[in-house]
Amino acid sequence: CFFEQMQTVTLIPGDGIGPEISAAVVKIFESAKAPIRWEERNVTAIKGPGGKWMIPPDAKESMDRSKIGLKGPLKTPIAAGHPSMNLLLRKTFDLYANVRPCVSIEGYKTPYTDVDLVTIRENTEGEYSGIEHVIVDGVVQSIKLITENASRRIAEYAFEYARNNQRSSVTAVHKANIMRMSDGLFLRKCREVAENYKDIKFTEMYLDTVCLNMVQDPTQFDVLVMPNLYGDILSDLCAGLIGGLGVTPSGNIGANGVAIFESVHGTAPDIAGLDLANPTALLLSAVMMLRHMGLHEYASRIQTACFDTIRDKKVLTKDLGGNSKCSEFTSEICHRVQDLA
Amino acid sequence: CFFEQMQTVTLIPGDGIGPEISAAVVKIFESAKAPIRWEERNVTAIKGPGGKWMIPPDAKESMDRSKIGLKGPLKTPIAAGHPSMNLLLRKTFDLYANVRPCVSIEGYKTPYTDVDLVTIRENTEGEYSGIEHVIVDGVVQSIKLITENASRRIAEYAFEYARNNQRSSVTAVHKANIMRMSDGLFLRKCREVAENYKDIKFTEMYLDTVCLNMVQDPTQFDVLVMPNLYGDILSDLCAGLIGGLGVTPSGNIGANGVAIFESVHGTAPDIAGLDLANPTALLLSAVMMLRHMGLHEYASRIQTACFDTIRDKKVLTKDLGGNSKCSEFTSEICHRVQDLA
Ligand SMILES: CC(C)[C@H](C(=O)O)[C@@H](O)C(=O)O
Ligand SMILES: CC(C)[C@H](C(=O)O)[C@@H](O)C(=O)O
Repeated sequence: CFFEQMQTVTLIPGDGIGPEISAAVVKIFESAKAPIRWEERNVTAIKGPGGKWMIPPDAKESMDRSKIGLKGPLKTPIAAGHPSMNLLLRKTFDLYANVRPCVSIEGYKTPYTDVDLVTIRENTEGEYSGIEHVIVDGVVQSIKLITENASRRIAEYAFEYARNNQRSSVTAVHKANIMRMSDGLFLRKCREVAENYKDIKFTEMYLDTVCLNMVQDPTQFDVLVMPNLYGDILSDLCAGLIGGLGVTPSGNIGANGVAIFESVHGTAPDIAGLDLANPTALLLSAVMMLRHMGLHEYASRIQTACFDTIRDKKVLTKDLGGNSKCSEFTSEICHRVQDLA
Repeated sequence: CFFEQMQTVTLIPGDGIGPEISAAVVKIFESAKAPIRWEERNVTAIKGPGGKWMIPPDAKESMDRSKIGLKGPLKTPIAAGHPSMNLLLRKTFDLYANVRPCVSIEGYKTPYTDVDLVTIRENTEGEYSGIEHVIVDGVVQSIKLITENASRRIAEYAFEYARNNQRSSVTAVHKANIMRMSDGLFLRKCREVAENYKDIKFTEMYLDTVCLNMVQDPTQFDVLVMPNLYGDILSDLCAGLIGGLGVTPSGNIGANGVAIFESVHGTAPDIAGLDLANPTALLLSAVMMLRHMGLHEYASRIQTACFDTIRDKKVLTKDLGGNSKCSEFTSEICHRVQDLA
């Protein structure tokens, strides 16, 4: 008999369907006997000293200690000046890389098959700098900020990711023909970093060309790395190719192992509390989390149980084309997880 | 017997396959007896007084007089500092609206059917301002410029286009959740203009959400209007849905009827001069041009001949899935144009 060290994860259930799908994930993890201790926290921003929005100290403290978070959808409160919770979390924990694997799911029909790519988005700067000015009445400028450090860091992350995940190519996505200095800097850093990864093929492509090629034949892509806004766009586009945000996992990675994994769909207030939600995106995000923590065996088992359930088509939530409740779909996955043990 | 007034169009054949596909269009227009007199010009930029890049005076003069241009692909010379020819043309003639109808072509198989939408892109400012700075070593900023005037102008163009083309909705595409001031201004102008077009439904959608929805179900979209960079991206994405740049027409519209219609694919130097090029994108751009000039009957006849040829599948260029030469494909369309007379 072998005792695995329990590891703590900060669980941020979120709003709307968040609590239901979080409960589903917790249940599936229990069935898998995954060595995770959950520490539940609410991150809804509060006004700190000096009027600055911040996440509550007990949530911050939990994340600082556990280093790993799993997060459901959050609604952004409509209070004037309230920041996007997603942006605030990325900033608070310097989560500089947003990673979204998009892999076709067998049995879930979309116009595409064999999609197997990963978008890696710079998560801290670019068009998201938040710096904007009125120059004169009726003339506004927004500043896109690109730094050498952030560009090198995300490029290095992309190549390391490729190497550690048996991927063979990295494509830098840019518009350096238009933004010659900013995207030019980003691209230069990608090229420099590529020099150190001779085992990974490096290519460059304009964002518009990527979009065109992506909808014509997504199988040509592998790992893609890009500045913030382009990542926002491409990651959603790619999610669409494999069935949407309901089945797409996401991870936000920071330095020193800190990371928050999250489903990127909304809070779906119309079905909240009705046991109709689909926990797949959060579950697959939790699977990414297990891999990040080195718990590969648990990750594979849970992922297989989830994909087998979808391929089997017998117990599916409505959005996946079935008629089952969230709890039934969850139980089905639990059973399969146990059978796979 | 009825004499129609001949109208002059400035023909810019362009580089690579440009001359071949331009010749194909001229031939098809002759078969249709379209009342167009072509005035051929080379627009490759030259260095004017003060070292500023400009298009040659005889090309500028022709466009100023004819007001209408048809343009094949241009290669951007690699001379240091040479501007993108496309950008220079847009700037020289203040072509503020880029219009790209994307309509599924019967008989040309893609993962999508029944796509029927139009992207309308602000063509003069935004991320294309060309204003960039190094702040300190390793920190670069690019400026996205949004003005009230350009935003109102493109919004008005979009609603007028919708009304004049029997379209029922306009969607403003933005990221005003992130670029609150710049995209916020753009969006506000769209909302204001929408007030004057109660017959057209107005909606707003985040760019990332548009991309996701677009690949899941493009039939939900009609007219889309957006700032420059988003248009660059979305127009290519949408072209991909219906078969790529080889079959997608494009128009750049300025004030007072000035317009340049163009195929947006490349110069394809590898097949230039081999009678293998596909003239469809340039031909459909020329059809848009005829409509712009009020020559609807010629436009319909040529378009029908082109689509019938593609649907029939007997005489197609290689990229369209056939084995015919550019000249054979062109002749086939010419015959059909004559039969339709
Ligand atoms: C909610 C919004 C601020 C966010 C973004 O624009 O980055 C979202 O679209 C995402 O991709 O996480
Ligand atoms: C060639 C390039 C400058 C151009 C752009 O980025 O606008 C092209 O992609 C387009 O869409 O016409």
